[in-house]
Amino acid sequence: MRRAEEVLPPDVFAYFAAGAGAERTLARQEQAWDDVLLRPRVLQDVSTTSPATQVLGQPVASPVLVAPTAAHRLAHPDGEVGVARAAKTAGSLLVLSMRASTRLEEVAAEAGPFWQQLYVLQDRGVTDEIARRAVDAGAKALVVTVDTPRVARKRAGFPAALPRTGIVEALDHRDVADPRLMQAADVGPRDLERLARAAGLPVVAKGVLTAEAARDCVAAGASAVIVSTHGGRQLDGVVPAPLALPEVADAVGADAEVYVDGGVRTGSHVLKALALGARAVLVGRPVIWALAADGSDGVRRLLDDLTSDVEESLALAGCPSCSDVGPDLVRR
Amino acid sequence: MRRAEEVLPPDVFAYFAAGAGAERTLARQEQAWDDVLLRPRVLQDVSTTSPATQVLGQPVASPVLVAPTAAHRLAHPDGEVGVARAAKTAGSLLVLSMRASTRLEEVAAEAGPFWQQLYVLQDRGVTDEIARRAVDAGAKALVVTVDTPRVARKRAGFPAALPRTGIVEALDHRDVADPRLMQAADVGPRDLERLARAAGLPVVAKGVLTAEAARDCVAAGASAVIVSTHGGRQLDGVVPAPLALPEVADAVGADAEVYVDGGVRTGSHVLKALALGARAVLVGRPVIWALAADGSDGVRRLLDDLTSDVEESLALAGCPSCSDVGPDLVRR
Amino acid sequence: MRRAEEVLPPDVFAYFAAGAGAERTLARQEQAWDDVLLRPRVLQDVSTTSPATQVLGQPVASPVLVAPTAAHRLAHPDGEVGVARAAKTAGSLLVLSMRASTRLEEVAAEAGPFWQQLYVLQDRGVTDEIARRAVDAGAKALVVTVDTPRVARKRAGFPAALPRTGIVEALDHRDVADPRLMQAADVGPRDLERLARAAGLPVVAKGVLTAEAARDCVAAGASAVIVSTHGGRQLDGVVPAPLALPEVADAVGADAEVYVDGGVRTGSHVLKALALGARAVLVGRPVIWALAADGSDGVRRLLDDLTSDVEESLALAGCPSCSDVGPDLVRR
Amino acid sequence: MRRAEEVLPPDVFAYFAAGAGAERTLARQEQAWDDVLLRPRVLQDVSTTSPATQVLGQPVASPVLVAPTAAHRLAHPDGEVGVARAAKTAGSLLVLSMRASTRLEEVAAEAGPFWQQLYVLQDRGVTDEIARRAVDAGAKALVVTVDTPRVARKRAGFPAALPRTGIVEALDHRDVADPRLMQAADVGPRDLERLARAAGLPVVAKGVLTAEAARDCVAAGASAVIVSTHGGRQLDGVVPAPLALPEVADAVGADAEVYVDGGVRTGSHVLKALALGARAVLVGRPVIWALAADGSDGVRRLLDDLTSDVEESLALAGCPSCSDVGPDLVRR
Ligand SMILES: Cc1cc2nc3c(=O)[nH]c(=O)nc-3n(C[C@H](O)[C@H](O)[C@H](O)COP(=O)(O)O)c2cc1C
Ligand SMILES: Cc1cc2nc3c(=O)[nH]c(=O)nc-3n(C[C@H](O)[C@H](O)[C@H](O)COP(=O)(O)O)c2cc1C
Ligand SMILES: Cc1cc2nc3c(=O)[nH]c(=O)nc-3n(C[C@H](O)[C@H](O)[C@H](O)COP(=O)(O)O)c2cc1C
Ligand SMILES: Cc1cc2nc3c(=O)[nH]c(=O)nc-3n(C[C@H](O)[C@H](O)[C@H](O)COP(=O)(O)O)c2cc1C
Repeated sequence: MRRAEEVLPPDVFAYFAAGAGAERTLARQEQAWDDVLLRPRVLQDVSTTSPATQVLGQPVASPVLVAPTAAHRLAHPDGEVGVARAAKTAGSLLVLSMRASTRLEEVAAEAGPFWQQLYVLQDRGVTDEIARRAVDAGAKALVVTVDTPRVARKRAGFPAALPRTGIVEALDHRDVADPRLMQAADVGPRDLERLARAAGLPVVAKGVLTAEAARDCVAAGASAVIVSTHGGRQLDGVVPAPLALPEVADAVGADAEVYVDGGVRTGSHVLKALALGARAVLVGRPVIWALAADGSDGVRRLLDDLTSDVEESLALAGCPSCSDVGPDLVRR
Repeated sequence: MRRAEEVLPPDVFAYFAAGAGAERTLARQEQAWDDVLLRPRVLQDVSTTSPATQVLGQPVASPVLVAPTAAHRLAHPDGEVGVARAAKTAGSLLVLSMRASTRLEEVAAEAGPFWQQLYVLQDRGVTDEIARRAVDAGAKALVVTVDTPRVARKRAGFPAALPRTGIVEALDHRDVADPRLMQAADVGPRDLERLARAAGLPVVAKGVLTAEAARDCVAAGASAVIVSTHGGRQLDGVVPAPLALPEVADAVGADAEVYVDGGVRTGSHVLKALALGARAVLVGRPVIWALAADGSDGVRRLLDDLTSDVEESLALAGCPSCSDVGPDLVRR
Repeated sequence: MRRAEEVLPPDVFAYFAAGAGAERTLARQEQAWDDVLLRPRVLQDVSTTSPATQVLGQPVASPVLVAPTAAHRLAHPDGEVGVARAAKTAGSLLVLSMRASTRLEEVAAEAGPFWQQLYVLQDRGVTDEIARRAVDAGAKALVVTVDTPRVARKRAGFPAALPRTGIVEALDHRDVADPRLMQAADVGPRDLERLARAAGLPVVAKGVLTAEAARDCVAAGASAVIVSTHGGRQLDGVVPAPLALPEVADAVGADAEVYVDGGVRTGSHVLKALALGARAVLVGRPVIWALAADGSDGVRRLLDDLTSDVEESLALAGCPSCSDVGPDLVRR
Repeated sequence: MRRAEEVLPPDVFAYFAAGAGAERTLARQEQAWDDVLLRPRVLQDVSTTSPATQVLGQPVASPVLVAPTAAHRLAHPDGEVGVARAAKTAGSLLVLSMRASTRLEEVAAEAGPFWQQLYVLQDRGVTDEIARRAVDAGAKALVVTVDTPRVARKRAGFPAALPRTGIVEALDHRDVADPRLMQAADVGPRDLERLARAAGLPVVAKGVLTAEAARDCVAAGASAVIVSTHGGRQLDGVVPAPLALPEVADAVGADAEVYVDGGVRTGSHVLKALALGARAVLVGRPVIWALAADGSDGVRRLLDDLTSDVEESLALAGCPSCSDVGPDLVRR
């Protein structure tokens, strides 16, 4: 992050770093993971350990996925393609943002397994069109972000006309000012149902923080949910992800996969997430900082490091694999 | 606040900023709101949202009211009239302090809906006279402050003879030193009853922090109570408002409206207040800082910003209106 | 305190300021009071309020007593006599330390009501002799410190040979090195019993932090107990006084009076102490700092200020007198 | 520590000081002890007190043992022999690290009672050989570290080729790069059983943090367990030792002795450990800092100081001996 702050123009850095509102949620998200306490096992055979797991049946090298974040070309010319290549090499899974600065087909061409993140736009036609393009390009799931009926005000927004243009172009639409390309305020169960049916792909609902919200998404057909504060960029003052995770896992864990993001930075954090009921985590800003600092290579190193770190944490906790992690591994 | 500190004479700034005693209550009031955690809803239709609500039947643009604070002309020549105009334009409700530096009739002439705050003075005759003048001037309710049987010592009091004179003149009384114009130490249920009966207006009891206190006020005829530490300016070391709010709402919520103030600064805070049982909040110092910095215009901008912020928070929490906010919206 | 630090030689200041061990108990004692939350009453008649109370039947102007602290002449030439006069004028009660730097008879001659603090010394004969001298000089109770079977190591001890000589001379003994003048490590119930019987005065046990300890003292004849960490100067890492107070009050409150000290600095703190079950508080270092800064006058001002502050706190909490304070006044 | 930082080369200091991962466990370990609150007894006869105790039947001057730490010759030429002499003179017990920079026979020749710490190595033959050599040299117990199926990554590893060579030479093996001399990842119950049987000595399992782990070790034949986070050098983010201690003591306290380490720095901390169920504590880094600063003499002074500090804490808590400390001595 420090290196990214050096290399990026201040407004670009601020855009990526910002949280919504008074940034309380942002300020606390790493601490919330640190506050969870691990209870390691001993005398287990961890001579062969593996952080590999599966998300919706998709094998991944570790339970660390790439969160959908916007406008990678603002961070580095390697952009989304660079991130895609890095994720592929590292055996991770890319969740490609709908607000990417590169056409999804271009990214898909270089990507390993990827999921397409979607905002439900005011224009459902365009929304469905992007979903269809993603299916055609090989996306394995649709990640529908449900915590953004509108984009929250932040101290720093898109830093210039440029990227927004880039984003709209990436959607194959030209009109920057078109409000129908903005997030829909009435995204509802029916959108999840329609997208799932139309795409013939599993739908992942991103941005739940309560049992009720998770149940609503699963009832609407979601195969998985992501417990997320949107990196502290939507409603400020919400419950941190690690506190929300157990109630979500209890509520829908039997019927859906549960992932989590927000402030996950170390193998130890990942282990805690698994113990609290998640199958995988996503990382957002660390990918951007690595991209800004060293392009695609930086992202690959970051992902490899996280994989090693998870593997080490598993071993030190006496767990040969992710599926060995259980609720006894955290203090309640 | 920073701007206000620059433009105001140090003793005036200190007077507005000060808390009582060791300022522990003051120091913690924003943090106490930050510590409440929101549980947002998803998949709700928030295409039309409105922060509008009613307080004692009075429609307001948002649940953010202007708290009664003394001596606005010390902050800016626009004074209480400027604040009144701003509140009117912003669709808010002004609670006019009895310690205003402007005659209430002058303020009322420019104000939208307003409530008159009263201290019960040692001279009940003067108290009732002010109440009557307020009724005549169009006040919609009387806000009787019950946490001030005397004014607590602070590191900074009224900064000069001037404002105190101003205040006494605003009461149409001339004798600065008259102790009968000071707060009565024996304000009791009978005062609430008498004022309510005489004025024919609803009475709001300002400054309760316990279920018992709230019940006493409602038993004495209060139509509403304000959970308040008086901005940390009366008894130091009391329970912060957000911690007191639930017990008050439980105790009297069925019989009276409940409002809250003290450290409320963001839409997220307002949402928390609603979820904990309040119908509206009041803001004190932010109005003074805005007034000091930019006069009436500054206050209007502040109130408009808070309204927008509440509106955004409602939308992001999945609540089209204030009445959709319920206790499930906060983690207990 | 700041002024005291300026006027005192560094080793003298350090001696007064020091806590035992790693000074954890010292570091937290004020915070522990701040963390207790008050629940004020409203609509009470507080036109006549008084902080006056009685301790063991002795009327005092407020529930703030002067804690026994050693070697006042190190702080200021006015010494114990100056403190005694100040306490008398302020209507407080002096607890005179056995480690005073002035003969108790000299202090008694100028004092109002006072209690004599005693350490049980290895030489019980000398101990009893001092007790007898105190009785003769008019002490109204004996305060036997039970938390000091030996003096804990501190970063700063008695700063020079001088004061220790002074202290020994005050005992009418000349041998500085005499171990029999040191605290006895076997102070037990029998000492309390014997001192009570011999003196014909009530005995107050100073330095309990648990229900068990309080019960043992009362069983041995104590008429009152002081919940105290000895100002953080004995065992480090103990429970702060406000946390210990409720269990002590529950255990012995029906049979004995309960006082508390350690970090009490404001009227708000005193109110909390009363609500948690204490009848009075003692202040230690503030007296020393006031003495160092301004001699006897400084101490009187401090005590008068604390009395006013308690009186104000009572009024603001809706309590005309100390006996109106009950457990409902604090949040549990 | 400050002095050690001055005299040691930065990379050596960093090696000793480092914790694993983000060093969260390291950062919190002293605070976790500070947060435990003592409940002292009064009116006990503490004229003769002694911090002496026994560990596995071995009398020691105090419940403070020397934790096994690697590579003492990096800290000071006195190395392990210096530490052994200091422990002997101070009446403490040395737990000699398998990663010592001196042959165990050389250390044993100068040591008082000592226990040999073992990692189970990939080459069980070498492991058993070291165990046998330790038995022959007079070790009174084997301490098998169970929290290190591999060495966690740290910001600073062994600072140069030199010490590692030293360590390997101390094992009477020459091949620095030999992976069979690294920690085994499959250390299991059978290793504890085999080592216990072969050595005919009690086995102590070092590095448990849960009831389950402790039970597994005792079931595998351990006579004692050490609750330990390995000084924050293995899995980061685990439960601090004082929080883990009670559940371990409850689970196995009836069948095995329980010790604890990690951040223990004062007599007050030791008392807390005893009250929470430990029979003794171990200190790691303080020994290294003392060694670095003043060689063997420094270590002796440290151990003597800790013994005095424990003795004083016992006395101030009203406990003549370690066996008088019970669970009532801490607030739960
Ligand atoms: C700059 C930025 C852009 C983001 N863009 C999107 C987006 O387009 N769609 C989305 O669902 N989430 C978006 N997110 C949220 C991330 O997917 C993720 O929830 C969050 O970044 C995780 O927190 P972390 O950054 O602390 O790892 C964005 C986050 C950041 C920081
Ligand atoms: C300078 C100042 C003057 C005040 N004057 C009054 C007053 O005259 N009457 C009253 O009931 N409350 C008064 N209050 C308390 C406010 O109504 C309100 O409870 C408090 O300011 C809310 O906290 P906030 O400033 O953190 O928003 C005053 C507060 C301040 C800061
Ligand atoms: C310098 C100093 C000397 C003290 N001497 C005595 C003493 O002689 N006898 C005694 O019982 N307590 C003694 N105490 C403890 C006080 O009576 C009292 O418990 C403590 O100071 C209260 O805490 P405070 O200083 O935070 O108000 C002493 C405290 C200090 C700071
Ligand atoms: C530099 C260093 C080396 C260590 N080496 C070993 C070791 O070889 N074997 C072992 O079981 N523990 C080892 N430990 C852990 C200690 O035995 C002990 O658990 C820890 O240091 C206690 O925490 P403290 O340093 O805060 O007192 C080491 C610790 C440090 C700091």
